[in-house]
Amino acid sequence: MFYHDKQLQYTVRVDTPNPHFARMLQQAIGGVEGEIRVMMQYLFQAWGSRGPTKYRDLLLETGTEEIAHIEMLATAVAMNLEGSPGALKEEAAKQNPMVAAVMGGMLPRHYLSAGMAALPENADGTPFNASHVYASGNIVADMYANVAAESTGRVLATRLYQMTDDPGMKDMLSFLIARDTMHQQQWLAVIEELGGYEGALPIPNSFPQAQEKRDVSYAFISTAVNDIEPPTGRWTSGPSLDGKGEFSVQRAKPMGQEPKLAPPIPEGFAQTEQMEGGLLGGVKNAVRNVRNELGGDD
Amino acid sequence: MFYHDKQLQYTVRVDTPNPHFARMLQQAIGGVEGEIRVMMQYLFQAWGSRGPTKYRDLLLETGTEEIAHIEMLATAVAMNLEGSPGALKEEAAKQNPMVAAVMGGMLPRHYLSAGMAALPENADGTPFNASHVYASGNIVADMYANVAAESTGRVLATRLYQMTDDPGMKDMLSFLIARDTMHQQQWLAVIEELGGYEGALPIPNSFPQAQEKRDVSYAFISTAVNDIEPPTGRWTSGPSLDGKGEFSVQRAKPMGQEPKLAPPIPEGFAQTEQMEGGLLGGVKNAVRNVRNELGGDD
Amino acid sequence: MFYHDKQLQYTVRVDTPNPHFARMLQQAIGGVEGEIRVMMQYLFQAWGSRGPTKYRDLLLETGTEEIAHIEMLATAVAMNLEGSPGALKEEAAKQNPMVAAVMGGMLPRHYLSAGMAALPENADGTPFNASHVYASGNIVADMYANVAAESTGRVLATRLYQMTDDPGMKDMLSFLIARDTMHQQQWLAVIEELGGYEGALPIPNSFPQAQEKRDVSYAFISTAVNDIEPPTGRWTSGPSLDGKGEFSVQRAKPMGQEPKLAPPIPEGFAQTEQMEGGLLGGVKNAVRNVRNELGGDD
Amino acid sequence: MFYHDKQLQYTVRVDTPNPHFARMLQQAIGGVEGEIRVMMQYLFQAWGSRGPTKYRDLLLETGTEEIAHIEMLATAVAMNLEGSPGALKEEAAKQNPMVAAVMGGMLPRHYLSAGMAALPENADGTPFNASHVYASGNIVADMYANVAAESTGRVLATRLYQMTDDPGMKDMLSFLIARDTMHQQQWLAVIEELGGYEGALPIPNSFPQAQEKRDVSYAFISTAVNDIEPPTGRWTSGPSLDGKGEFSVQRAKPMGQEPKLAPPIPEGFAQTEQMEGGLLGGVKNAVRNVRNELGGDD
Amino acid sequence: MFYHDKQLQYTVRVDTPNPHFARMLQQAIGGVEGEIRVMMQYLFQAWGSRGPTKYRDLLLETGTEEIAHIEMLATAVAMNLEGSPGALKEEAAKQNPMVAAVMGGMLPRHYLSAGMAALPENADGTPFNASHVYASGNIVADMYANVAAESTGRVLATRLYQMTDDPGMKDMLSFLIARDTMHQQQWLAVIEELGGYEGALPIPNSFPQAQEKRDVSYAFISTAVNDIEPPTGRWTSGPSLDGKGEFSVQRAKPMGQEPKLAPPIPEGFAQTEQMEGGLLGGVKNAVRNVRNELGGDD
Amino acid sequence: MFYHDKQLQYTVRVDTPNPHFARMLQQAIGGVEGEIRVMMQYLFQAWGSRGPTKYRDLLLETGTEEIAHIEMLATAVAMNLEGSPGALKEEAAKQNPMVAAVMGGMLPRHYLSAGMAALPENADGTPFNASHVYASGNIVADMYANVAAESTGRVLATRLYQMTDDPGMKDMLSFLIARDTMHQQQWLAVIEELGGYEGALPIPNSFPQAQEKRDVSYAFISTAVNDIEPPTGRWTSGPSLDGKGEFSVQRAKPMGQEPKLAPPIPEGFAQTEQMEGGLLGGVKNAVRNVRNELGGDD
Repeated sequence: MFYHDKQLQYTVRVDTPNPHFARMLQQAIGGVEGEIRVMMQYLFQAWGSRGPTKYRDLLLETGTEEIAHIEMLATAVAMNLEGSPGALKEEAAKQNPMVAAVMGGMLPRHYLSAGMAALPENADGTPFNASHVYASGNIVADMYANVAAESTGRVLATRLYQMTDDPGMKDMLSFLIARDTMHQQQWLAVIEELGGYEGALPIPNSFPQAQEKRDVSYAFISTAVNDIEPPTGRWTSGPSLDGKGEFSVQRAKPMGQEPKLAPPIPEGFAQTEQMEGGLLGGVKNAVRNVRNELGGDD
Repeated sequence: MFYHDKQLQYTVRVDTPNPHFARMLQQAIGGVEGEIRVMMQYLFQAWGSRGPTKYRDLLLETGTEEIAHIEMLATAVAMNLEGSPGALKEEAAKQNPMVAAVMGGMLPRHYLSAGMAALPENADGTPFNASHVYASGNIVADMYANVAAESTGRVLATRLYQMTDDPGMKDMLSFLIARDTMHQQQWLAVIEELGGYEGALPIPNSFPQAQEKRDVSYAFISTAVNDIEPPTGRWTSGPSLDGKGEFSVQRAKPMGQEPKLAPPIPEGFAQTEQMEGGLLGGVKNAVRNVRNELGGDD
Repeated sequence: MFYHDKQLQYTVRVDTPNPHFARMLQQAIGGVEGEIRVMMQYLFQAWGSRGPTKYRDLLLETGTEEIAHIEMLATAVAMNLEGSPGALKEEAAKQNPMVAAVMGGMLPRHYLSAGMAALPENADGTPFNASHVYASGNIVADMYANVAAESTGRVLATRLYQMTDDPGMKDMLSFLIARDTMHQQQWLAVIEELGGYEGALPIPNSFPQAQEKRDVSYAFISTAVNDIEPPTGRWTSGPSLDGKGEFSVQRAKPMGQEPKLAPPIPEGFAQTEQMEGGLLGGVKNAVRNVRNELGGDD
Repeated sequence: MFYHDKQLQYTVRVDTPNPHFARMLQQAIGGVEGEIRVMMQYLFQAWGSRGPTKYRDLLLETGTEEIAHIEMLATAVAMNLEGSPGALKEEAAKQNPMVAAVMGGMLPRHYLSAGMAALPENADGTPFNASHVYASGNIVADMYANVAAESTGRVLATRLYQMTDDPGMKDMLSFLIARDTMHQQQWLAVIEELGGYEGALPIPNSFPQAQEKRDVSYAFISTAVNDIEPPTGRWTSGPSLDGKGEFSVQRAKPMGQEPKLAPPIPEGFAQTEQMEGGLLGGVKNAVRNVRNELGGDD
Repeated sequence: MFYHDKQLQYTVRVDTPNPHFARMLQQAIGGVEGEIRVMMQYLFQAWGSRGPTKYRDLLLETGTEEIAHIEMLATAVAMNLEGSPGALKEEAAKQNPMVAAVMGGMLPRHYLSAGMAALPENADGTPFNASHVYASGNIVADMYANVAAESTGRVLATRLYQMTDDPGMKDMLSFLIARDTMHQQQWLAVIEELGGYEGALPIPNSFPQAQEKRDVSYAFISTAVNDIEPPTGRWTSGPSLDGKGEFSVQRAKPMGQEPKLAPPIPEGFAQTEQMEGGLLGGVKNAVRNVRNELGGDD
Repeated sequence: MFYHDKQLQYTVRVDTPNPHFARMLQQAIGGVEGEIRVMMQYLFQAWGSRGPTKYRDLLLETGTEEIAHIEMLATAVAMNLEGSPGALKEEAAKQNPMVAAVMGGMLPRHYLSAGMAALPENADGTPFNASHVYASGNIVADMYANVAAESTGRVLATRLYQMTDDPGMKDMLSFLIARDTMHQQQWLAVIEELGGYEGALPIPNSFPQAQEKRDVSYAFISTAVNDIEPPTGRWTSGPSLDGKGEFSVQRAKPMGQEPKLAPPIPEGFAQTEQMEGGLLGGVKNAVRNVRNELGGDD
């Protein structure tokens, strides 16, 4: 279960409120790279965790920390929506100040729906959708999903850092960026504990590889035409990273048939011309329509 | 640009059509772990690729292969929806055969919307949503997203393999599982080429670490109460995986303030009681309502 | 900021695992009447709270409790997905056990995507969408949204209680139902503190009523045709609940014009026939096409 | 069934077209606080209404009125997208007029997709999603959902009123605001008819309260740590609003167990290390991989 | 504006309630081929209609009729959810009747969320999404969208007709199928009035064809490899349907360049290795990291 | 299966990068009128195609071409996001260049999420949703859906053409507009091959018309009140377009009953007042509450 403290995990200070930056911060709250996603991802992984309990505990810890990050960002959004930003003052003299603010890059719903507060949405106003919560039940697959989330999350945070000159905002982001550094590390550390490349791959490592089509398990297949050379690299020759195969290159070629589906079932009400004996079907259809004209039942 | 062949990349054969398994296969088409997602993810990463061209080429190759995988699975769905599955025949004698089929676990829209063919949706009937296409512009972040996609994808394929006894379906899945093995390998191989843990981390490696709050960059922060011990592991002590720090443990404690937002702006039309000087506001509101009663303008 | 405890807020016990009931419980997790919604709704209302701080604190308290409710339900889902439910054993003898389970009413993604754990989705497999988080910045509007959420939430919980005979599940639900009772009470208590019907209505009470079209502010407008009598009740006569008007009844009649929009702008590329001087436009279009044939530029 | 009149319910007049305000009006059409939502909500509640018929009639009446409100707003959007707004003329001299208009805050799809007309979307371009239609089958729960919708709806309308200086738009909004006043009243009037707080609560009142965990039915549970005092108010002491209990305060503490889920089922293909006897599993896995190497079947 | 009648447009009678068929009917309410979609599509087209007013009137008429169709279907769903269907009685004797009903193919939310009434969702439980409302401002484009909607709508209705043996349901569907026949006709009739193929095509006909790349305006481009012959038909030779060109066949070949994007901008925080002079960048990065270690600012 | 070429289908050239136009181009990628939709629509129609194989081949050909169109547009977006657009330079001198660019109309996620590359989303930032892929299994219904898609697609492309003065962008769009011309033609050509109006209508033509309610199959039903005359046209008199009926006009009138649903089932937990014998129910409820007070079980 959960508890709260009224203080924030780290100071949130806005020196010059900027409604446009408030919009940008939304991406870190409700974007696919944002904090709602990782909070829910880590907690759902924890709540469904099976196997050694220490990983459940680890996920619960960091999932709980992420709630505090949403709180910091939501506070930062609300603070950036306050006051009368300098850049908009001149404009505001000429016209309705709300219009001026929105035209200055504000997210319309920050005013219309929230009365100057954060939303669980991204910077384009798309609400967070929980299908982004990955929790597969396979711990290494989930760890890679977590590393990916923290990587795009840190990239996003650095772009936000770049966009602002506000010392308070830069300070808050420097904290969040550092936490993303650690979170990348800790999920990779779990993979290392669980065997690294050689022990953990291919994921899932509990499915017997004898049951996969092993002649294409370590082959790079090139789909390029016109004698284009496939790109060479670590993936085209030498031992595979899991130590269980040798990389090779194959040209893509069809190994399967040209598919031929059965005619439509009558209950599907395709056009008559699609039915078996299409031409005959057309005639039959015409006959039926005549019968319909005459009032007959089919 | 793109070309096609009328033959499939690999044989698709269904020995005993099974409408319920058709539904399950949908997860591999339109689910978040499915092929539409990776197809679009690799192609969008390729089309936005900046930097060394060989990675663009690599992404284009594999993105193109994935289209063929969707084609195989869509064909498998259509074939599983054909004929009159044995398990349903007895039931069918008693009642409307379509009803029998649907009650046998079929996805309703396979009949109602598609007339017995595949849909770009998952096994629960949720349409694919392109927000799942990760293409951040940072190549290592994207590679981790690709490894995660291929990991959950291979887990899914092994579960589908487990659910079917159909030799044709098992054969098709053994091919797709093998390709997932290779795709996990090749994206990890790119990360290795680009420096591995030490060179590539933290992602993005182009943001100067001096600008992050370094005292929490390698610290595991525990949010547990009641003297619960934080989980120990590779992430709590020793050198960090990127070689740039030492892991440590901290107890979570508030470093920030209790947030205090400004009163609502009048244009936001909060309740009067929320305004500055709430009590006074209440009185003012009452006065205004009286004035309203008297027909005065505010 | 937030902390966690490894123990649950209330005991979760499943006497007889039932994958079908696991599916039903999903509605209480990721449905619009569910716990993810209220958790995020109360926390976002707290984080954007302006005005007296005690309401912010109240929202933060209950939002934090709701996280623990999601945790209980997610645990209950995972437990219901365990073991080999009695009702499915016979079936399992005949065929693949996974197929039997899914045909027994399981949500496909419980196995395919989560490996037997909860998802942030509803009972039909639709992911939670954060547009359901209401936080308007007007505290009384928000309180009514909260009462509505707890009301549909308690209705849902009683239906779930009705669906199960499992003593453990009934015990857990009796706890959640009791909490919904309290939460209905506490949000209504805030409205009472803030003036009840007479003080708080109409919401927002800070907008001067002199600016609304007062002749229809307390009038029930009936849209029925054919001499159907409008339904009478508390809303058709007598003083209004806010004490600021008298209820009356009006028959709907158009007070506005028949709308007549301007012709399309040329840059919109409507059909030529929609342009001003439609007939002339048609001729002009024909002429232009002839000119095009002759290779002239337009 | 339904009929229409070609005239509008109330006059829609735009004195100075403003494409930016057209965008803002979209929130009142397709936003969660908007008219599509209430139209569908009241009609679906009516169509599923069980019990006294007068409430079905009431819902049908107001649902029908709401269609006319969408019509007025859609007309207002189209009119605001006409002409050449003064504020953009100067800019238009320098560059492509369409670009100028869009940079002036227009919603891109107003031009690109609709050719200068309204969309069933909100002000940020998010399409209306019908999961927002609440119709639970419990009439009091639904009435509270309706009050909430009309409350956020009226808050939105007052914000739109505030944003415009156009006399025509202000006149139209003053009509819609007045209707929201009445609709708040009429749904609350239904609750009063059905027993008010004491008769109607807790919702649903048909579930026997003896079956809920009554020791927490009227208790405020505080999740705060560090000796923070819980917020006191109407909800912490005294009789409950439904007259069926006494408010009290409890400190949150775990009453449940630390959850311990069973190991993963083998068919879920978790990592081997998650299986029962994790270490042994690791060895078993290694052995199997060796066997795979040697071509053996598992 | 709009009015209603308490009677339905056509009789809705259910002889044998069938919760499974209630689920199937949802596709005709909230599916992409369903009535909510056409209702909103025709009304939004009407409300944004520019040009001859009779088309606006026509759209308003049929849009209004569609509301009555939703009402009929919603009533049919509620009726199918009533009583105790024969097929489930035996099962019900053994266990909880709600569970039996749901396992008999019911949509879980019909009970859990709606208390046995219709939802604005499809047969798989996906809520209606208003992005399916096509209203482009070009009347012929919109008419084709309307024909498409009525075509998939009639296909759906015939499949539903096929699935039921209930005489009341068959009667209701025979009415809706007939209306779909007419609606297909009437939208095609508008296209004929507006010039048919020769006058109306290509859509939009107000864009000067001289500005399109006319050498590919009537050419079928074949993307097939390996000497596969392109499919021949009405589209490969002879005059085009609009009488403005001649059909021909071309083999797909690249006419464009291999794209080469600029290196990433530094503010995008790609990996250093993606920057211009990748190798140099790597060195620079290493140097910077050393400087960071030494506490220098970048 | 599929292959690729590294060159584009047609040249993509951007003379003056314009981040605002990059945003507009997104509508042609991920909008409902865009290329992702038609690519997936044609390919899914091909993969589920039943009946004459030449239509499957045709769909496969054009579906493959559409992938190349997405590629062209994605490249165009990336190119428009490069460099330092002239219009923004002055502004950039005063402030943070990223802020300037975004305020210049850029889509926030182009920078924040993609690092200056295309997204699978529309111009308002809404991700593509695959429910827009129409593939009904009825070939003529699908062809009309395809004509509709190419019609709104060509309208969109002409609006984009109008918005830009960049010669490179105009050239690219003139190619795409020409392809839309052809695609409109080819889908209509299929309908003509399959019988045109008389042979193909009503869709599906395989459902016996004797089973529809033929007295309303060719009748225009007017829902207008107040003696408004229904709009007359090709659809109100004369032979129907399919040659199977005569158009007529009817005034809408109710042919059905006033619906009366059964009282709620007790398991649905409606309010007691909704139950059969509402008043009695109210009393019963009161009694039960008293019993609850006394601690009795219900």
